[in-house]
Amino acid sequence: MNRMLVGIIMGSESDLPVMKKASDTLLQFEVAHEIRIVSAHRTVHEMISYGEGAKERGLEVIIAGAGGAAHLPGMIASVTLLPVIGVPIKTSSLDGVDSLLSIAQMPSGIPVATVAINGSANAAILACQILAIKYQEILSKLEYYRVDMRGKVIASAEKVEEELNAKKS
Amino acid sequence: MNRMLVGIIMGSESDLPVMKKASDTLLQFEVAHEIRIVSAHRTVHEMISYGEGAKERGLEVIIAGAGGAAHLPGMIASVTLLPVIGVPIKTSSLDGVDSLLSIAQMPSGIPVATVAINGSANAAILACQILAIKYQEILSKLEYYRVDMRGKVIASAEKVEEELNAKKS
Amino acid sequence: MNRMLVGIIMGSESDLPVMKKASDTLLQFEVAHEIRIVSAHRTVHEMISYGEGAKERGLEVIIAGAGGAAHLPGMIASVTLLPVIGVPIKTSSLDGVDSLLSIAQMPSGIPVATVAINGSANAAILACQILAIKYQEILSKLEYYRVDMRGKVIASAEKVEEELNAKKS
Amino acid sequence: MNRMLVGIIMGSESDLPVMKKASDTLLQFEVAHEIRIVSAHRTVHEMISYGEGAKERGLEVIIAGAGGAAHLPGMIASVTLLPVIGVPIKTSSLDGVDSLLSIAQMPSGIPVATVAINGSANAAILACQILAIKYQEILSKLEYYRVDMRGKVIASAEKVEEELNAKKS
Amino acid sequence: MNRMLVGIIMGSESDLPVMKKASDTLLQFEVAHEIRIVSAHRTVHEMISYGEGAKERGLEVIIAGAGGAAHLPGMIASVTLLPVIGVPIKTSSLDGVDSLLSIAQMPSGIPVATVAINGSANAAILACQILAIKYQEILSKLEYYRVDMRGKVIASAEKVEEELNAKKS
Amino acid sequence: MNRMLVGIIMGSESDLPVMKKASDTLLQFEVAHEIRIVSAHRTVHEMISYGEGAKERGLEVIIAGAGGAAHLPGMIASVTLLPVIGVPIKTSSLDGVDSLLSIAQMPSGIPVATVAINGSANAAILACQILAIKYQEILSKLEYYRVDMRGKVIASAEKVEEELNAKKS
Amino acid sequence: MNRMLVGIIMGSESDLPVMKKASDTLLQFEVAHEIRIVSAHRTVHEMISYGEGAKERGLEVIIAGAGGAAHLPGMIASVTLLPVIGVPIKTSSLDGVDSLLSIAQMPSGIPVATVAINGSANAAILACQILAIKYQEILSKLEYYRVDMRGKVIASAEKVEEELNAKKS
Amino acid sequence: MNRMLVGIIMGSESDLPVMKKASDTLLQFEVAHEIRIVSAHRTVHEMISYGEGAKERGLEVIIAGAGGAAHLPGMIASVTLLPVIGVPIKTSSLDGVDSLLSIAQMPSGIPVATVAINGSANAAILACQILAIKYQEILSKLEYYRVDMRGKVIASAEKVEEELNAKKS
Repeated sequence: MNRMLVGIIMGSESDLPVMKKASDTLLQFEVAHEIRIVSAHRTVHEMISYGEGAKERGLEVIIAGAGGAAHLPGMIASVTLLPVIGVPIKTSSLDGVDSLLSIAQMPSGIPVATVAINGSANAAILACQILAIKYQEILSKLEYYRVDMRGKVIASAEKVEEELNAKKS
Repeated sequence: MNRMLVGIIMGSESDLPVMKKASDTLLQFEVAHEIRIVSAHRTVHEMISYGEGAKERGLEVIIAGAGGAAHLPGMIASVTLLPVIGVPIKTSSLDGVDSLLSIAQMPSGIPVATVAINGSANAAILACQILAIKYQEILSKLEYYRVDMRGKVIASAEKVEEELNAKKS
Repeated sequence: MNRMLVGIIMGSESDLPVMKKASDTLLQFEVAHEIRIVSAHRTVHEMISYGEGAKERGLEVIIAGAGGAAHLPGMIASVTLLPVIGVPIKTSSLDGVDSLLSIAQMPSGIPVATVAINGSANAAILACQILAIKYQEILSKLEYYRVDMRGKVIASAEKVEEELNAKKS
Repeated sequence: MNRMLVGIIMGSESDLPVMKKASDTLLQFEVAHEIRIVSAHRTVHEMISYGEGAKERGLEVIIAGAGGAAHLPGMIASVTLLPVIGVPIKTSSLDGVDSLLSIAQMPSGIPVATVAINGSANAAILACQILAIKYQEILSKLEYYRVDMRGKVIASAEKVEEELNAKKS
Repeated sequence: MNRMLVGIIMGSESDLPVMKKASDTLLQFEVAHEIRIVSAHRTVHEMISYGEGAKERGLEVIIAGAGGAAHLPGMIASVTLLPVIGVPIKTSSLDGVDSLLSIAQMPSGIPVATVAINGSANAAILACQILAIKYQEILSKLEYYRVDMRGKVIASAEKVEEELNAKKS
Repeated sequence: MNRMLVGIIMGSESDLPVMKKASDTLLQFEVAHEIRIVSAHRTVHEMISYGEGAKERGLEVIIAGAGGAAHLPGMIASVTLLPVIGVPIKTSSLDGVDSLLSIAQMPSGIPVATVAINGSANAAILACQILAIKYQEILSKLEYYRVDMRGKVIASAEKVEEELNAKKS
Repeated sequence: MNRMLVGIIMGSESDLPVMKKASDTLLQFEVAHEIRIVSAHRTVHEMISYGEGAKERGLEVIIAGAGGAAHLPGMIASVTLLPVIGVPIKTSSLDGVDSLLSIAQMPSGIPVATVAINGSANAAILACQILAIKYQEILSKLEYYRVDMRGKVIASAEKVEEELNAKKS
Repeated sequence: MNRMLVGIIMGSESDLPVMKKASDTLLQFEVAHEIRIVSAHRTVHEMISYGEGAKERGLEVIIAGAGGAAHLPGMIASVTLLPVIGVPIKTSSLDGVDSLLSIAQMPSGIPVATVAINGSANAAILACQILAIKYQEILSKLEYYRVDMRGKVIASAEKVEEELNAKKS
């Protein structure tokens, strides 16, 4: 797909190492996407413009990563009707418990689809699963991905067993 | 929409009071859906059949509520490529912290879109937002819902101010 | 003081029973204030207008109460330079731990002065202490309040001792 | 005992360093066992086959290690009547609290015998204690193990005291 | 089975309402058992005698319930080689988190098979699963129990669906 | 401003690396301030003298950092009417959760304006926001700071986008 | 003993229902004591005077109860060399976790002997155990108390067994 | 004092680095003491003998360090009437929260005087404070220690201020 379907946003460049995995995963599924630094607290108006214009610009899902008070996913969700996936980023002091609660515990009316702490790869897969209800080619890639993933576990299982057997004999 | 688009599942009838709000909210958006009791632990094979057959039967999103060890959302997500929304149900001993962690902290490859503890109404809205990337009529209802929600806050704000002013004078 | 110096805001009427104590306390200090319902998520633009216009309208401190994901205090702090005091409201599922972390753990650049869970009375006193660096009459009232508070503890101490002695004899 | 009595399973090769200690401990007790990689989420059907066939293949206890959402022990317990011992594996973000709750907080009807975070050695000893109600030779080894363990503490105690006395004089 | 196979112990009569469910569940499986009040802290020597004599008296599994500092399961496990199942009892102040950690986090060498907070029914089922590796008749009862449990979920599922359909029509 | 307006205090020299950022930030805003080591527990009387004399010596805001039981901010707040900002310092064992709760959960009557764990830079900005209700020059610097902060996020956003685009082409 | 040996203090009359049990328990051991309301935050100087004069007035142990930020035990410990026992009082929002951490996590040099949340009876027994290293008559009472406590557990155990047997027959 | 007054015990040599500080601190106060490895779980009978014989052997206070399930302090307290000070040792997985709760949350009748996580130096000071109600020479040393501690804070304060002033000029 050439059209930008997913927007990956975060409040600061320091979140990029974690959020990069969302981009890498989308690339694997050949889903065009953009990465943006927009801060809920430092660039409020840009953040609102981003959210309000997202649908018009063709985006269909937004992935927002944030740590600590972690308002970005919830605020973006307030200014768009696109599904917003929130990635709680691990923090140095509270290990991301603060991020997780700040993202998951949204009030009635404005949900955020929360994934695991630092779960940006899963955020991308969830985005693909959402898009796959509409785009058959993404569904096909997900089907292949699942089969491949199962294959890797089985291969790893065989390798481990062989190694363990080799040790015994 | 007459076609069943959303499946709401839970492991036990005791989860129904919480999950009922997901159904009520979907009704509000006129999204046809089914409610099923399937237990990840007590009816494993039925749960797997449900997940594996969900897409074929026309479902496009699954909402799964669970409390405590809360394996249902994650296990269903393992056997379908439909987006799965997990509702952590408040538990008597740990207030739903166990449910939240058991649902949100999924391993790489199998995401669950987690909402707030007891956030079943938000799960339904998130389901609508996901469906709205494909169904224009659901998007329209969401737009109306947002406007209405904003209107209610403003009306409530005015009512509160009047009451407070009335007290002063 | 007749001029409105403090704005007390919250996202929903359901927060009023807790936040009412902030208003009652300000009344005790004869600090004119307003109470508003503005929601960070449901009325984003009204919330931003409120924050951006607060200083111009003469406010000098804002008290914002919020529960759960609790974005209101942090978002208001993003759109005003007035000091913002955040009151974490106790939630039904997580007892306000989520509210406390979502309010206190703000990123560098945008502080929120966080008080205890449900600590709206203390939020009002903190507002007075802030105003008192500028308004002598508020300082005087705070001085009296402290003396009075000390007096009440001492009176309570005496009452308790008398009662306990009465029982013995 | 030459017959395989214990199955040690985990969802990913990355869990092997922790779970290896269960194997080492069983070796110490000369209890034959197998190690398998089976994932509750990535190889659901293999996991179910493993659980359902475990008893027939002669296993009498299963040790399952898992981290994060940690569904493996509970899901295996759902498809076998053998006692299942769950080892919560320490996670990078939440230190294994998520693993512990996801494993211990199982619903009524399907228990998992949970040990300490990263407690795979203890899982093996528990497996031996369970087997020892049936196999006298394992009980004898456990008896020796206890005596030996006690001896080591006493020897360590003496060594420490000598060292401390040596320093004094 | 007429022989006493399971000992259910707790430190205080106040734990009886929770631990009673373990007894009721064992009765359901027709497993003879005894209930004893022995306190790790208040009757240390009786507790040790109980643990040390348990095997000789024919017991094969011990279920120990405890709340707060919850030393009973771990201490009993120190003085017997029988498998010990620990039931963390919900406490008034910390909801049983203290009990859960005090029971699960045992040091290497002395495992306790920990179940969910207040999970005494599951403790009994786990006891049966352990005994079933030796006693065919208990295994048969567990097989029936599982089938019955699955049947109840399916019946409940049908009832719920009928009720929901009835409302619609 | 040449007059000392802010006092930065901490109980031990070991807190200096964290609290230094409060001083650096105040320097950036050209707000004269002092740094003092006063311990609530080890130099009680000096601590009380410091708090009681603070206003007379011209201070208008106090920033107090503390870790663990973290009594300094609350005790200083008890002996002055100046607004006290508390900085919970990250601790080696509990990551600062203890510090955060000990500072935020103050009883009614004596508020402490709590910021994030290790949030000493934000404490300084909050101090400036408080002073800015009185001192126009500090308000001006805060306005510039906000504009600058927004500019930096936008610059960072552009840099990141360019880098990502460069990689693609 | 007629001389006042123990001081029981708390910051507010609302703590009396919990702390009363410390007094009742001391009465049981016939240890003369006083109960005082002194607040670390509201009556700082009275609190310091109390602590500094405690030894001279003949006290030998102080029991201090506090909830939330819970500074009283630690501050009293700072102004006396008498052993101070801290009772964390259960709070409405955080169940006393805040109280427990604020009391237990004291910095090096000023220990507080912390007991369980709401553990005021145990605080009194600990006070007696401390006094018993000096006063033989208190030791004798403690010895009797232990014997009696053991007797009660055994009596309760017998009663429970009889009741359970009665039901069976 | 030449007589052994304090026993420092721990369950394993691995606790020695933490508990060594208790010994070092007692040496500073010239309080004779012994260090012993006794395990509540691995050497139950030795542990009970130690506790039951402690008083007869002349000990007046026991300091017990333990991590994880941390039963040693509570079990020793069950078999002696000497005051027992518990040191929760920081654990690799749960940072000592498990140790803290397992030690502090003792049931009514058997208190343990709990200090901070890894607070073994404070345990020694608390032991001295307890002994000081009986031994004047220990009280004198504590008085000197407090004065010295206060002096060090003041010296450190002066050093820091000089350094900061030196930088400015």
